[in-house]
Amino acid sequence: MEKYIILIFCKDKQGIIADFTQSIYSNNGNITYIDQYVDKENNNFFMRTEIEFNNKSDFKKFNLFFVNGPVKKYNINYDISLKYYNSKVGIYVSKYNHCLYDIISRTKSDELQIEISFIISNHIDLKNIADKFSIPFYHIPVSKSNKLDAEKKQLDILNKYNPDLIILARYMQILEDKVISNFKNKIINIHHSFLPAFPGGRPYHKAFERGVKIIGATSHYVTNELDGGPIIEQDIIRISHIHNIESLINKGKDLEKVVLSRAIKLHIEKKILVHLNKTVIFN
Amino acid sequence: MEKYIILIFCKDKQGIIADFTQSIYSNNGNITYIDQYVDKENNNFFMRTEIEFNNKSDFKKFNLFFVNGPVKKYNINYDISLKYYNSKVGIYVSKYNHCLYDIISRTKSDELQIEISFIISNHIDLKNIADKFSIPFYHIPVSKSNKLDAEKKQLDILNKYNPDLIILARYMQILEDKVISNFKNKIINIHHSFLPAFPGGRPYHKAFERGVKIIGATSHYVTNELDGGPIIEQDIIRISHIHNIESLINKGKDLEKVVLSRAIKLHIEKKILVHLNKTVIFN
Amino acid sequence: MEKYIILIFCKDKQGIIADFTQSIYSNNGNITYIDQYVDKENNNFFMRTEIEFNNKSDFKKFNLFFVNGPVKKYNINYDISLKYYNSKVGIYVSKYNHCLYDIISRTKSDELQIEISFIISNHIDLKNIADKFSIPFYHIPVSKSNKLDAEKKQLDILNKYNPDLIILARYMQILEDKVISNFKNKIINIHHSFLPAFPGGRPYHKAFERGVKIIGATSHYVTNELDGGPIIEQDIIRISHIHNIESLINKGKDLEKVVLSRAIKLHIEKKILVHLNKTVIFN
Amino acid sequence: MEKYIILIFCKDKQGIIADFTQSIYSNNGNITYIDQYVDKENNNFFMRTEIEFNNKSDFKKFNLFFVNGPVKKYNINYDISLKYYNSKVGIYVSKYNHCLYDIISRTKSDELQIEISFIISNHIDLKNIADKFSIPFYHIPVSKSNKLDAEKKQLDILNKYNPDLIILARYMQILEDKVISNFKNKIINIHHSFLPAFPGGRPYHKAFERGVKIIGATSHYVTNELDGGPIIEQDIIRISHIHNIESLINKGKDLEKVVLSRAIKLHIEKKILVHLNKTVIFN
Repeated sequence: MEKYIILIFCKDKQGIIADFTQSIYSNNGNITYIDQYVDKENNNFFMRTEIEFNNKSDFKKFNLFFVNGPVKKYNINYDISLKYYNSKVGIYVSKYNHCLYDIISRTKSDELQIEISFIISNHIDLKNIADKFSIPFYHIPVSKSNKLDAEKKQLDILNKYNPDLIILARYMQILEDKVISNFKNKIINIHHSFLPAFPGGRPYHKAFERGVKIIGATSHYVTNELDGGPIIEQDIIRISHIHNIESLINKGKDLEKVVLSRAIKLHIEKKILVHLNKTVIFN
Repeated sequence: MEKYIILIFCKDKQGIIADFTQSIYSNNGNITYIDQYVDKENNNFFMRTEIEFNNKSDFKKFNLFFVNGPVKKYNINYDISLKYYNSKVGIYVSKYNHCLYDIISRTKSDELQIEISFIISNHIDLKNIADKFSIPFYHIPVSKSNKLDAEKKQLDILNKYNPDLIILARYMQILEDKVISNFKNKIINIHHSFLPAFPGGRPYHKAFERGVKIIGATSHYVTNELDGGPIIEQDIIRISHIHNIESLINKGKDLEKVVLSRAIKLHIEKKILVHLNKTVIFN
Repeated sequence: MEKYIILIFCKDKQGIIADFTQSIYSNNGNITYIDQYVDKENNNFFMRTEIEFNNKSDFKKFNLFFVNGPVKKYNINYDISLKYYNSKVGIYVSKYNHCLYDIISRTKSDELQIEISFIISNHIDLKNIADKFSIPFYHIPVSKSNKLDAEKKQLDILNKYNPDLIILARYMQILEDKVISNFKNKIINIHHSFLPAFPGGRPYHKAFERGVKIIGATSHYVTNELDGGPIIEQDIIRISHIHNIESLINKGKDLEKVVLSRAIKLHIEKKILVHLNKTVIFN
Repeated sequence: MEKYIILIFCKDKQGIIADFTQSIYSNNGNITYIDQYVDKENNNFFMRTEIEFNNKSDFKKFNLFFVNGPVKKYNINYDISLKYYNSKVGIYVSKYNHCLYDIISRTKSDELQIEISFIISNHIDLKNIADKFSIPFYHIPVSKSNKLDAEKKQLDILNKYNPDLIILARYMQILEDKVISNFKNKIINIHHSFLPAFPGGRPYHKAFERGVKIIGATSHYVTNELDGGPIIEQDIIRISHIHNIESLINKGKDLEKVVLSRAIKLHIEKKILVHLNKTVIFN
């Protein structure tokens, strides 16, 4: 059995689903999962399907049929990928180790179907973890004076590995524009607040100042706007007056790990469609 | 525009979605929403669609086409209903008023698109609420000696109104078999525990005894097995050692209201398919 | 048995608890509940106790002892009130009825120990609810030109009833300064966002625009700064791309009701201490 | 500064708090935290305090005073321990690695102040993790025929290390009675259901069968009754009809980790008092 995931985006029109499903059926394919969403306000059509074919040849026939038929007829943007595929992932870290440990643990316990290809860090602190798990570790310090040089070094590594996903696992630097533009909708950051509340630095300090009763974490794709990219996942935990900043930071760690790992899972399982700075999550 | 909701259940086979969507498309219908689920273990196919036609005539053509085509080909069980329709609802209560008030409030604030046709109670206590909102109130006391008579009275009322849904809003009696069988998958109960924990009477007392850290509520369709019917919705709240039974009862009220009203909403919006004592919720 | 609640705030010093508890014990009082919090960063001491005396005479002896002893020694700010007391409450509304219905329902089902003394509204729409439950209803339209006049009318009513608490149950106007200053820490507003995200008008629209995955509600004391007062309670619900603005508004209603009623309950049970625009919640 | 945690349990009587706080204050101690609970139904008094003394000598004076004074007067059960202390922990595992990885990660990221002294397992599978982090690993297979022998081996190891806490991190065997009785209220198990629902084996299978909409996890102290010990912490996640047993197992992993680690944290921070098969959690 050949299993594929197909993501589709186009303007909404009568007949898309009928034509699409017909194109699968008539080529001996089987739809095992279909999730579809129409944004009525903007007349947009989004769909995620999982399909299976008895052999590669049938899939190829379908593919030809689909690309020359529905794709042209409805002007469809699409993405077809194999369902079972170990995504190659690069991780950026600084000094905090909880997200890195969490991603590694989930990989080891088969929760995340990824291969961690490399780790980049502006600090040397977490190299011992990389070594323990035999993951290539690149120490690229970043300062005001060496930004361009650091960017070049990063790009060299990124080009070498060409990862399917880059994870900023509490990387405390802003990425350079070229890295962002080269990996559009492929860089996921975890921000330790409930965006759009408390963007930028020291969100736990700001939350403490304001006296909120809940703190949050947000995973999002990285764009040029700081903490302004498409939100993938958010979650929260209750706090109270008894929590000082230190305990907020500690409580938040749990949240950051969970919210980041959910976003990673959604990305590698091709469950996210980005449109106009918002995400459609097929879940 | 004529808007309909179609629920479908059958054995899974290649081509169902293609044939179904084609039958809509070829009759000038438009699918505005599709949610589908395949139970692979048991090879069952479930689907909920929302479709619209420009006029009743197109819908009728589709209907004929559908019933003679896909329905026969795939042996489909289906349910077609108008999307905007004020469901007629009957409510059973005893002495607790919080769920009744909640349902009325949500109806008044347009959260629930229902018409409360009547209230049946084994006690007279809540008649004043019914009166305040001009809802017919039937006081039918139930005792060991008058069960059959009470059942008959209830059936007379139910037959008179023929409600789309019967809500047991903390009705502290077990319904008679004939009421249950006449309104299969049309009677929703709220049980004040996280089923299957603490079925039967006094669940808050049992939860207190066991020292649980979370209490729950469960809304389910009523079957002959006490608290054993298909679960529609569940939710929980945290408690701690400081809560005695009285405070559990009070905290639980909030939960009961919310969990019951969510189930009502799912039912009247035709988002529930029952299969083998479990629910498929299209949400 | 005479039961009292005592709230205490002062600078932290060794001996406060010992002296306080001794002053109760030596006057035949019994502490049934003690909750205490020290803000170490700012060296502040907060405490809530529930105490009982066999008779009023013992309480009076304690009171004298306490006021002349610990209060002077530690420069204590305190508030003593009877434990069982039906708070008098005034409610402001506009056109939305869900929060009003909810407060009334909870009062009727004994979840809230309050007496709703009056309702003020800038619109006439909800008068029928007030009438149904025999609550005095004052219609005070507010426009740019009549602000001072409207304020005066409101103040007359507030002075007449002198409520223990004023609830803004989705009142869509900003209160005048004098109302706010006359009832400092006695006016609770429900804001339909997770503050400090989306303050001001149309938060659901803004949440939709940003593509957040969770929406929230915040109850807070009203100060001169719009949506900037001390936060009492917050909660959230998950949303997704499928929710348009209308469905956000509907989903949010449930949240608003719950978050508002929790704040009301905390206030009337004297479980809130306000300090420097933040709340200490003894819960 | 010498910092201590004192747990107290006795029958409730007037004057306990006054006498206790006086005994601290008069020996130059300072209460930095007090949390107290009276079980009125059974007239039991529970208290947790954190206190500090300028030097060990003051603490010793207090200790003498306390033991000869309040302890005798009120017949107090008490536990005094140093606030900052690295608890020695032993972990039992079988084949699942997610909880083990999680505990190690949290230890490395300073979320848990513990020293993992040893790992015992009935399988060899996770030895590589123990090796990676240089933790002694004891492989003790358990079968019907060697139960007594396995128990003896375990007791030898437990006696050697004398851990402050034993964690069953998805250990798929029932402990022998002697291990349980030797470490009463010192063995924490994570059960992968919302107890008392689905005790015993295969809870995810049973949850799937019943069609629940929420699954849970429960951490509890181990007693001779299977999954019947005092509950420390519980939490839940939502599921739906789309989740088959395999996906329940995967979703549950996240929950198990979080609920187990919270219980560990509460135990090592001396925030749990066990009384009559229930826990008082000072949190």
